[in-house]
Amino acid sequence: MRRQAAERGNVRPDLWRNMPVVSKLAGARNPLGRRSFLRLGAALTGGLALGAKPGHAEPAQASPPADAPWSQSIGAGVVDRPYGRPSDAEAGVIRRNVPWLTAGTESSVSFSPLQHLHGIITPNGLFPLILAIKDIVRFPSVSRIHFIECPANGGMEWRAAQMNSLQFNHGMISCAEWTGVRLSTLLEEVGLKKEAQWAMVEGADGAHMNRSLPLGKCLDDCLVVYAQNGEALRPEQGYPLRLVVPGWEGNVSIKWLRRIKLGDKPWYSREETSKYTDLMPDGSSRGFTWLIDAKSVITFPCPEMPLDRPGQYEIRGLAWSGNGKVKCVDVSTDGGVNWQSARLHEPVLSKALTKFTLPWHWDSQPALLESRAIDETGYVQPTITQLRKQRGSNSVYHNNSIQTWQVKPDGSVFDVQLA
Amino acid sequence: MRRQAAERGNVRPDLWRNMPVVSKLAGARNPLGRRSFLRLGAALTGGLALGAKPGHAEPAQASPPADAPWSQSIGAGVVDRPYGRPSDAEAGVIRRNVPWLTAGTESSVSFSPLQHLHGIITPNGLFPLILAIKDIVRFPSVSRIHFIECPANGGMEWRAAQMNSLQFNHGMISCAEWTGVRLSTLLEEVGLKKEAQWAMVEGADGAHMNRSLPLGKCLDDCLVVYAQNGEALRPEQGYPLRLVVPGWEGNVSIKWLRRIKLGDKPWYSREETSKYTDLMPDGSSRGFTWLIDAKSVITFPCPEMPLDRPGQYEIRGLAWSGNGKVKCVDVSTDGGVNWQSARLHEPVLSKALTKFTLPWHWDSQPALLESRAIDETGYVQPTITQLRKQRGSNSVYHNNSIQTWQVKPDGSVFDVQLA
Repeated sequence: MRRQAAERGNVRPDLWRNMPVVSKLAGARNPLGRRSFLRLGAALTGGLALGAKPGHAEPAQASPPADAPWSQSIGAGVVDRPYGRPSDAEAGVIRRNVPWLTAGTESSVSFSPLQHLHGIITPNGLFPLILAIKDIVRFPSVSRIHFIECPANGGMEWRAAQMNSLQFNHGMISCAEWTGVRLSTLLEEVGLKKEAQWAMVEGADGAHMNRSLPLGKCLDDCLVVYAQNGEALRPEQGYPLRLVVPGWEGNVSIKWLRRIKLGDKPWYSREETSKYTDLMPDGSSRGFTWLIDAKSVITFPCPEMPLDRPGQYEIRGLAWSGNGKVKCVDVSTDGGVNWQSARLHEPVLSKALTKFTLPWHWDSQPALLESRAIDETGYVQPTITQLRKQRGSNSVYHNNSIQTWQVKPDGSVFDVQLA
Repeated sequence: MRRQAAERGNVRPDLWRNMPVVSKLAGARNPLGRRSFLRLGAALTGGLALGAKPGHAEPAQASPPADAPWSQSIGAGVVDRPYGRPSDAEAGVIRRNVPWLTAGTESSVSFSPLQHLHGIITPNGLFPLILAIKDIVRFPSVSRIHFIECPANGGMEWRAAQMNSLQFNHGMISCAEWTGVRLSTLLEEVGLKKEAQWAMVEGADGAHMNRSLPLGKCLDDCLVVYAQNGEALRPEQGYPLRLVVPGWEGNVSIKWLRRIKLGDKPWYSREETSKYTDLMPDGSSRGFTWLIDAKSVITFPCPEMPLDRPGQYEIRGLAWSGNGKVKCVDVSTDGGVNWQSARLHEPVLSKALTKFTLPWHWDSQPALLESRAIDETGYVQPTITQLRKQRGSNSVYHNNSIQTWQVKPDGSVFDVQLA
């Protein structure tokens, strides 16, 4: 450890700031061209050419495509560069925030660009803000892939369809591999008195964000984590330690975790009284509604990623449930009249994003695309109409209703709600 | 798509360069302190305090730990910041390169800091260098978690133990979620003549790196990918497209993929004649030895992460096989005389890194730590002595032998080879 610390001391903290930008490939905005990349060859035995000459539409012969300028000289050397970055051509793939949604930007929210993501892992850079502590790290470790979703995800849609955007409707979710120690292991080390029924978990941020958690959940599957996607937690993710409460609203996964206190009743903290309660039609509030029920959304096509032209497509989406594994996802192209089973892609993990796809031939006719998740408990994702019957439209949190995307004949896609 | 392109155009490419550094948390080198973080509480009902006051060793009372200066004011606001970065305190967790190992840095190699990583996912920043092409992206998509290993990983150890380092002995490997289209889907679209038995896959780099692959492997599980860990491939990872050949030596997973040509025999390219062949004791060379056989290594403890003091530990490591899933991993603390079964952590995926652990009480006695992977085909990871009997010691590639770590009474750890 002493050796390690000394080695760290030799790394100048300003190295990242002064790191040369990798501009060899980035110089050309779109080096290989988006058009005509796939070419069908006509060689003796058949072939497939992945072309590098933009604007050249006819099928290539067996000869290789012309060389782009950047491919004719050697690239930048490999150096001790700690971190690369995405291609400049992907500069539009960023977290989005809504300054008007919260009183200040300090407590604002981030939306993942689901329309540009592939698979069930969210890259580290898209998480809003990581040190492993010597003693914590010595306990038996576990690694789990879990989603974390803000219960306000889709909160703006309770009264009407407001945001014409996948990113803003569903982007307050991410899925990562978390590594740490079971909270039950730490509590076992402490020893529990029989009066202990609740735990107060508290962060080291200025507000000392805290929530009450029933002991059963703490002993079931909660994790005190020090790493995300293999690397130590990033500062904005709660470095050096955070709690991960699988399948429950993200707010309880306390960052910069500094204290866990046990008691015989909940603490009724600010974040579970004035916030994170559901205002019902009769004026009463539902509290301690932590669970994320089964939910799904179609990520392609969507408002940000419309259809280009008629033809063969693959409808793609993500499904998840705070109650365990996703059992199946149904997809409709006619607003919920007819449903087909989508294919779930492995690995299908408990309380993790699950990728689903369905082949679809689009003939330029209007369509109403919907997906409906069913989890291993048999719970079926509801419509917004069903949710409003139970809970009215005053709520902010826990809108897990079916999303409808209206596809117009020109391929554009809109956020709509069906009666 | 047009809308998307316009939106990208609005993003200034120099935004990243001028991005303010997140220094609020980073200002203090070690804000929460590595020592004394775990504290045992003594409240009425018991409790667990995660302390923030370094150098304060006695158990805390039920009151919260003292506030660190950085926790007493609001943090930096949330802005449209595309990418965060690891904590400054993790600046030592970087890729390492060996300038003297290759003629120039352009063709050099990178080693992952396995000693600092947790779980089976390698963060994007640690991969040596991602655009999705409109037509490719419309094909049915698949996401798979696979390792990619350079067959020269451990190449310096053929003759003797040379490097006292986990990172340099085993770091030329990584594991990511790859999303793209099956090569078989693209070849089916092209149509195959019966003469086609081999494919030449070629990159758009200056050398037009190319390799010959038997058609059976191409149709089995090869992927043409456009995304890694959710985001578009990074430039150094082959943006916009690369091949992923699961379980085979990394060199055949061609980056910046621009052409696939079919033929009735291999091409005998430079990378499969002068390189990537195994020089045998009789002077002949084994060629086309693509498969990565079962392999494993203990990542904690290791030379870079020694033992601090006697007590309870968890031996941790990674195992993988190019032939499918890891079936089990045995661990020895006495140089291979006695073996115990380690616990494999879910998910155990085909041709992916698998995490294993074994609890271990270390009493300050010398120890010889080894791990031995057995895959679903029944193949058992060999010793270096067994490998040398078959292949001599002139090889560079495909050293998948058991790694021995010698633990000394002071807790330091050394790379040794047993006779």
